[in-house]
Amino acid sequence: MSILEKINSSADVKKLPDESLEQLCTELREELVRDISKTGGHFASNLGVVELTVALHRVYDTATDRVVFDVGHQCYAHKMLTGRRTRFDTLRSFGGISGFPKPCEAPDDAGIAGHASTAISNALGMARARTLLGGGYDVCAVVGDGALTGGLAYEGLADCGESGEPIVVILNDNAMSISENVGGLARLLAVQRVRPGYIALKRFYRRTVGRYEPIYRFVHRIKEWVKDLLLPDNMFEDMGFYYLGPIDGHDVKTLTRTLRYARDLRVPVLMHIRTVKGKGYAPAELEPSRYHGVGAFDPVHGIEAKESETCFSSVFGDELTDLARDDGRIVAVTAAMADGTGLCGFSAAYPDRFFDVGIAEGHAVTMSAGMAKQGLRPVFAVYSSFLQRGFDQLIHDVALDRLNVVFAVDRAGLVGADGETHQGSFDVGYLCQCPGMAVWSPSNYAELRSMLRLALSGSGPAALRYPRGGEGQFRDDTSVQDAAVLRTGADVTIVSYGITVNDALAAAEMLRERGVDAEIVKLNRLDRVDFGLIAASVGKTGKLIVAEESAQIGCVGTRILAELECRGTAVCARLCNLGSGVVEHGSVALLRSRLGLDAAGIAGAYDALAEHK
Amino acid sequence: MSILEKINSSADVKKLPDESLEQLCTELREELVRDISKTGGHFASNLGVVELTVALHRVYDTATDRVVFDVGHQCYAHKMLTGRRTRFDTLRSFGGISGFPKPCEAPDDAGIAGHASTAISNALGMARARTLLGGGYDVCAVVGDGALTGGLAYEGLADCGESGEPIVVILNDNAMSISENVGGLARLLAVQRVRPGYIALKRFYRRTVGRYEPIYRFVHRIKEWVKDLLLPDNMFEDMGFYYLGPIDGHDVKTLTRTLRYARDLRVPVLMHIRTVKGKGYAPAELEPSRYHGVGAFDPVHGIEAKESETCFSSVFGDELTDLARDDGRIVAVTAAMADGTGLCGFSAAYPDRFFDVGIAEGHAVTMSAGMAKQGLRPVFAVYSSFLQRGFDQLIHDVALDRLNVVFAVDRAGLVGADGETHQGSFDVGYLCQCPGMAVWSPSNYAELRSMLRLALSGSGPAALRYPRGGEGQFRDDTSVQDAAVLRTGADVTIVSYGITVNDALAAAEMLRERGVDAEIVKLNRLDRVDFGLIAASVGKTGKLIVAEESAQIGCVGTRILAELECRGTAVCARLCNLGSGVVEHGSVALLRSRLGLDAAGIAGAYDALAEHK
Repeated sequence: MSILEKINSSADVKKLPDESLEQLCTELREELVRDISKTGGHFASNLGVVELTVALHRVYDTATDRVVFDVGHQCYAHKMLTGRRTRFDTLRSFGGISGFPKPCEAPDDAGIAGHASTAISNALGMARARTLLGGGYDVCAVVGDGALTGGLAYEGLADCGESGEPIVVILNDNAMSISENVGGLARLLAVQRVRPGYIALKRFYRRTVGRYEPIYRFVHRIKEWVKDLLLPDNMFEDMGFYYLGPIDGHDVKTLTRTLRYARDLRVPVLMHIRTVKGKGYAPAELEPSRYHGVGAFDPVHGIEAKESETCFSSVFGDELTDLARDDGRIVAVTAAMADGTGLCGFSAAYPDRFFDVGIAEGHAVTMSAGMAKQGLRPVFAVYSSFLQRGFDQLIHDVALDRLNVVFAVDRAGLVGADGETHQGSFDVGYLCQCPGMAVWSPSNYAELRSMLRLALSGSGPAALRYPRGGEGQFRDDTSVQDAAVLRTGADVTIVSYGITVNDALAAAEMLRERGVDAEIVKLNRLDRVDFGLIAASVGKTGKLIVAEESAQIGCVGTRILAELECRGTAVCARLCNLGSGVVEHGSVALLRSRLGLDAAGIAGAYDALAEHK
Repeated sequence: MSILEKINSSADVKKLPDESLEQLCTELREELVRDISKTGGHFASNLGVVELTVALHRVYDTATDRVVFDVGHQCYAHKMLTGRRTRFDTLRSFGGISGFPKPCEAPDDAGIAGHASTAISNALGMARARTLLGGGYDVCAVVGDGALTGGLAYEGLADCGESGEPIVVILNDNAMSISENVGGLARLLAVQRVRPGYIALKRFYRRTVGRYEPIYRFVHRIKEWVKDLLLPDNMFEDMGFYYLGPIDGHDVKTLTRTLRYARDLRVPVLMHIRTVKGKGYAPAELEPSRYHGVGAFDPVHGIEAKESETCFSSVFGDELTDLARDDGRIVAVTAAMADGTGLCGFSAAYPDRFFDVGIAEGHAVTMSAGMAKQGLRPVFAVYSSFLQRGFDQLIHDVALDRLNVVFAVDRAGLVGADGETHQGSFDVGYLCQCPGMAVWSPSNYAELRSMLRLALSGSGPAALRYPRGGEGQFRDDTSVQDAAVLRTGADVTIVSYGITVNDALAAAEMLRERGVDAEIVKLNRLDRVDFGLIAASVGKTGKLIVAEESAQIGCVGTRILAELECRGTAVCARLCNLGSGVVEHGSVALLRSRLGLDAAGIAGAYDALAEHK
């Protein structure tokens, strides 16, 4: 029986003798490689924190102590140690283990994660609650260096250092975020190196002199003076943290000892550890970016080199690169997602016109505003759920001055396995709220190309929202119109847009077989809905279905119904959308089916309408 | 004739002999005191930057160079020097001079401002556009130390330092933001003090050794080594900035000389200046917070001590303080707006349970989430337009885990003189988008008190949205219902909520005099609209007006019409709201009248309906 099989909690990890820890780490790594190579998931980041995870469970009891993982790309080993190991074959599939920390899954998951840079703020709130309510537990945040490029992390650090709260912030420094790290923080970390022996000195000092208050104060002043003179200064210490590091993040014993020491200092501590992303699996160590998020693969041979698949992201990136050839004003902006948004080709072709600002969506929006103001044509490519971070900047810095910034909003609608934190459920609502924002919804590659051109040639802010993955059967380019009738019919009007148009058309086929003749209206512009076209169609059919991958509040269907009511056009209607709740993880196809947004669901909506009548 | 009267542009400022500069500063100060004491406006911050403003115009030509003011509380002297001095009697009134930089007002205003921490990002975008397009102009950002507490400023700094772009970031350090500065940054600034002579050394070095590349590289290494050993390190230098400072911000000649030097370095420069908020007007120097934003006052006697007026903010603060007495779980959170949100009393009564996190709305939301997760009852009081900064955190950190955080959303709806950047136009839309968020809309103080209790006793996220200023005639407490019929009538249904209910009731009186009998339905919950009540009323009257201080997209009226359409309830309807454009500055009463949201406007909507029929 392996050691791992006997572990189901922090308490079990604590029972192990020191000598077993390395073996436990080896087993965890083997299990991670075995499981993730079957299910896919976040790979390199999880391999990098095996020793850290074991150390966390040696020092904390995660069922009561609060260990907050930032982003959550690094929580698999933690999940395996807290009773979820045997269910890892269900990872990221519907009803199975989430790929991110999830409090409703186990008390050991302290907080929601998925978006970057939240852990310090969240943990500080918990630490303050602990102190005010007299709780006996400890609080720790685990943050990657990539997440520190986000302003939210800085806001959290500033407040945390000043708070005096007993809390440990572990900075997991692998000199990578998802791809290579950028910006001033990388520089900052490069200088946060204290001379050898400094930690030992600190610990000795704290244990001896530090125990006697008057001597402490006196010696403290001398120490500070000497330190100012001799040691490179440290941003974290300036902010009020007790800084420990850098520490080898793969030495489980040192990690455990230092973490215990940090916990017991009873002040805000920043513990800086150095890890290798992909540690222990050679191909991932060599190419950590490629092994960040993986599909199933053969662990013996590694991920096979294959042609990158064509998808909305790649078509966008290729088209933008083409357009940039003839227009020197075009620049591309990304927030640490060059690969995911299809911009790697652009960055290679036009390195001077490509800007990766790190995980800093708010800055990306405002910086793009400045670019547009002075004559560039910036295109910020960003995932729908991450652009929520730039909502205020969209309004304040772009929309109020009507600047021609183009937002390439990728992963709009359902994203699947990444689940509730990543679903692009809200962009239709929040993009349309921005005054004067043109919101385009391409249904296929041809339309994405055309609409990108239209957006770039416009005179105000514009967004294109398109889904994760590839196009469907429908490939006509209807982009010259605000809306298009794809199929005429007399019995029911089905309004849809984006990728959902394929399911609407398929639903029409299903209905036709049952003698029902559906008219399909496809929307291209969501900010400026062609109500006239819809009203005319509904005037003929008397029945309306609006099918869209958007949360109920903020959806286009509501605006259509309101307009029909205003016009006095009576209709028997049904809205098919993502509803008012939260959409969990699972395959996109399965989620669509469960939400009634696949062909069968849309056809079924007709039946419900017909019954109703 | 004064010097000031002859100045209408940067060029005019440049023509002045050095000897006239102090006189110009004196005249600017006198004019500021004279004008703002008549019109009201931002006072202390503008007095603090008189010398800086003159220096900026000596060095830059603001008509073509891009000088980006952060927040914009400090742009009055700049406006006076660029052709807008004689129109200062119209400051912040409808059609008059805006209290914030506004590009459409003059080419000298480089970018929109109003929300904090945007200038570095914006200016960096401009600098990159300048460089890529080969522009010959210079770029400068002017940022207060308060704005540096915002994560966006940090994101901007990190990218800016790394960019290598010729750009000057002026850090205007007055050790205040609006009230006293907080957090790690204050600490950081306190240590950013270089030894005397360092700047002179730097300049000498750059001019001599720095001109010869190979020698430069060699000496640079030695210099860095010596500096690491001898000088306190500096966060800004670590981030890639050439740091100059601190410099006396009231010495116009040194400022000008240093700024010119900074501009000509052709690298990212951080120029750290120290100013006194309220400089030159003694009462404001003594009490800068009190003189931050002022109404009209007698400049001889200063602002008179008067009883603070009762308003929604003060009622909220008082009630929360009362509730906190009996419930130790209640804590209050603010983002540098303790005074504006009515929390000063709370902070005095419960200093340990009061958290001012600086201008860091995103952090405030996520930190509150952590607090709620561990059993506290955090109440984050924040202005509607500033909470836009926390939109992602509302969804990701609060809503997804259904945490009981209460958002006291102040300045919801029209705010008046602060104008387009500050209008609370979007919160109805973005708050209702957050899954499971209860959105309460009190119409008067009694309801605010009751709804605050209800929100605190609930089990998920809740927001209360209430306006700037005080209550109106309507003072009943209807909070136990989701919606209430305030007045029955057979001819038209007027649905409204919040402060607008007063105008709806007044409109009903106006209509009654003309023999039209209006039914008034008031909504208390905006996330969960009582459609049944509305449908019943509309079934009787056949006519509907929905009056609300919300942008058109995301408004409740649209959802009501959609629901009526779904129910097959025909109605002749009219939506009165803030429309789809941007609402500029002006008095709230005037804006309401122009937007058709006062009593006459709502009554007029009935006439339009009746005609339509």
